[in-house]
Amino acid sequence: MLYIVGLGPGPGYATEAALRAIREADCVFYEDYTGPLDLETLRRAAVGEPVRLARRDLEEESGRRIFECLREGRRAVLVTAGDPALATSHHALVALARARGFPVQIIPGVSIICAAFSAACLSIYKLGGVATVTYPRGGIYSRRPYELAEQNLRRDMHTLLLLDVREDGFFMPPRDAAEILLRLEEEEQRGVFTLDRHVAVVYRLGWGGSTLYTQLRDLLSLEAEGPAVIIVPARLSPVEKECLEVAAARRPAGKAP
Amino acid sequence: MLYIVGLGPGPGYATEAALRAIREADCVFYEDYTGPLDLETLRRAAVGEPVRLARRDLEEESGRRIFECLREGRRAVLVTAGDPALATSHHALVALARARGFPVQIIPGVSIICAAFSAACLSIYKLGGVATVTYPRGGIYSRRPYELAEQNLRRDMHTLLLLDVREDGFFMPPRDAAEILLRLEEEEQRGVFTLDRHVAVVYRLGWGGSTLYTQLRDLLSLEAEGPAVIIVPARLSPVEKECLEVAAARRPAGKAP
Repeated sequence: MLYIVGLGPGPGYATEAALRAIREADCVFYEDYTGPLDLETLRRAAVGEPVRLARRDLEEESGRRIFECLREGRRAVLVTAGDPALATSHHALVALARARGFPVQIIPGVSIICAAFSAACLSIYKLGGVATVTYPRGGIYSRRPYELAEQNLRRDMHTLLLLDVREDGFFMPPRDAAEILLRLEEEEQRGVFTLDRHVAVVYRLGWGGSTLYTQLRDLLSLEAEGPAVIIVPARLSPVEKECLEVAAARRPAGKAP
Repeated sequence: MLYIVGLGPGPGYATEAALRAIREADCVFYEDYTGPLDLETLRRAAVGEPVRLARRDLEEESGRRIFECLREGRRAVLVTAGDPALATSHHALVALARARGFPVQIIPGVSIICAAFSAACLSIYKLGGVATVTYPRGGIYSRRPYELAEQNLRRDMHTLLLLDVREDGFFMPPRDAAEILLRLEEEEQRGVFTLDRHVAVVYRLGWGGSTLYTQLRDLLSLEAEGPAVIIVPARLSPVEKECLEVAAARRPAGKAP
């Protein structure tokens, strides 16, 4: 049996089902390239020392070490940050395991996508889609965040932007994302990511971070580090606006802890 | 201090932070009209017997009993199913508490919205919005599910449909939702909710339920009870399709546990 388990966005978010699956596993693997893993909680739950798998272990080597454990008739668990299945990163592994006759159970965790909406007091009914702000690949910037936010603003829906994780495990800080969004505006010039565009930023959720509601220009000088998400809200309802402003007022914009 | 805590969709989903907030509270309140609450876990964590609040306690009486506890300088916690803030149901309470000078902390939980995508192997990047299928109010059916699904199919994005909770706490089963969606099709006639439309159904997540991938017509005779969500997928990627079909094949359509 293979369990794929999400530990949530940071300390405190592990669920009882996740902890039980880890505790009862014979082989505990984890990856921390799709999100920031709470290794301390993982070590507390696991019986032995958890084994770190890099992207190439899972993608190029197809999780060979996981299958070595399964073939011996033992229980394996692969632990990730957030929710383990939402971004489809591990679907290939799930398909391979099932094709080889090993049952797979996915244990959902708290996803940053839902938790960020919750922390920013925004209504999930108005989530119009999710895109990722990426560092340029081969000099090219993905225009997907621009196009999605443009569509959603027109439909009066919110857009959630995840921020890139670099190959070396560095999480893009909000200031880099703001720079990229403003550069997209320079190229596209349709008034989506203007300097005065108000955005909500949820950074380091579960890791001592906070929520901000501020203009894109203010993010350029923000000291806060990643991981973070940026929400481009459509028109806020009075209830959303009041709640978001209060949530954000607890820490002045520009100051990170 | 007021904590608003989500216990997730069912047993096993409570997070460590949620359990800690409940354990350390002087007064423990809960509501179960927005989702199915795991009362056994709540009772296990709480020091005294948790107090149930009805919708009128929270909405008409503005959470009077919660404020009685807070005014005595004690810690109060309000526990809900799922994530406590995503649907903005308790934002008015949060605003009122803050206006009266009581700090509020929201502890996100596993939301059915993210967990259902995870269970159905669908990419959250393609979530185009969330609507609720409601029983008629005054003879009128909400057309919002139809309009959103129509927009999203055109944009090649998935639509998540939550199902209504009746005043008496009854969760709409998938068969009732299918009937309502087919009636909307009769009225609108634009080919969105046809009998052969394929949908994913995630029902009773955490409560022994399962995932189905089937045509709308098959839901009419489905025995499965609520709570459930229905996802109207746009074009599935090969990875999504394989994973969803395998997830759904574990239980034959039409048979509920």
